[in-house]
Amino acid sequence: MSQENEVQRSTYIAKQLKKKEVVDARIAAATQERGVTILLTGNGKGKSSSAFGTMARSLGHQKRAAVIQFIKGRKETGEQLFFASHPNVEFHVMGHGFTWETRDPELEKTAAEQAWQQALIYLQDPNIDFVLLDEITYMYKYGHLEVADLIAALNTRPNHQNVMMTGRTAPRELMEMVDTHSKIADERHAFRAGLKAQAGIEW
Amino acid sequence: MSQENEVQRSTYIAKQLKKKEVVDARIAAATQERGVTILLTGNGKGKSSSAFGTMARSLGHQKRAAVIQFIKGRKETGEQLFFASHPNVEFHVMGHGFTWETRDPELEKTAAEQAWQQALIYLQDPNIDFVLLDEITYMYKYGHLEVADLIAALNTRPNHQNVMMTGRTAPRELMEMVDTHSKIADERHAFRAGLKAQAGIEW
Repeated sequence: MSQENEVQRSTYIAKQLKKKEVVDARIAAATQERGVTILLTGNGKGKSSSAFGTMARSLGHQKRAAVIQFIKGRKETGEQLFFASHPNVEFHVMGHGFTWETRDPELEKTAAEQAWQQALIYLQDPNIDFVLLDEITYMYKYGHLEVADLIAALNTRPNHQNVMMTGRTAPRELMEMVDTHSKIADERHAFRAGLKAQAGIEW
Repeated sequence: MSQENEVQRSTYIAKQLKKKEVVDARIAAATQERGVTILLTGNGKGKSSSAFGTMARSLGHQKRAAVIQFIKGRKETGEQLFFASHPNVEFHVMGHGFTWETRDPELEKTAAEQAWQQALIYLQDPNIDFVLLDEITYMYKYGHLEVADLIAALNTRPNHQNVMMTGRTAPRELMEMVDTHSKIADERHAFRAGLKAQAGIEW
């Protein structure tokens, strides 16, 4: 190895060790062990898929999960086809009412309330390690559910339980109380370039 | 129903129909059918999990998928435990070398090149519908791989193939050529509040 290369290598190693030190110090400071609440918002692609990916990760570690999808599409989704039959997953799609094509706010509200009652059961069940409330935030936007009820349920859930929630926007009270909040920005989207939505990517 | 309620209901329905019209027009304009390239960047939580969630969605529709993880952690990840045994998934974790704890840039580079050769095989294979290049963008940041090689491979891949790539930052050339790019911002993270990382959420 040339002397110049050796210097480069040493500099690189020194930088990496410095980074490791910083990361290790942060890891040492993070000692509290309990379940977390995670909120994913924003207009970019990836919110629900991120939640389902995290669920897969939990299932990989033999955790038990429950899903409530608050918006029902016209087609059966890939995530439902993939996860609904898993022995450690309870999978619910809101019975009827709200879709992007809906016309009836009263049917929607009733369906939202039924789905929320189902969600509440899981949020009180210590056997459920991971709860996914997919697209729940639209229910607050449309006035079908009360965010105070969600916050109360999150605050009294089993200590080890992780909860993920998705939706384009979210009430401020929710954003302020969750442990983790990622916001997904749409920098560029295939749809705008005229590309057709497809099974396995969009649903 | 009171007259006031009836008016509210009609207004709501009219608004929803208007929205549906706009969405329908956009759907009608998106007619091109081919696979897409999707890039997920940003410092927020959810990039890899979003890619794995999309992969689950693809698997739900009976697609075939291949994963190359360019960064290997110390522990076996939930996503590997969950997906690696699936009959429609090829799962590779970079053989050795690069981890967040590494010290040797030359070993890293060799490992990165080997992983890239494996990725290339899938990017040329018409039987693979979905390719996930997890944390690949770090390889360009550290100079272990050339982004021009990735772009050439994306441009010549099978027409129907979807490719997802993740990493905190990405080279500008890549951001400018992908079909979809979502950037995940870290609005709040449990780690900073002293919460310990846990199996099923962080790995």
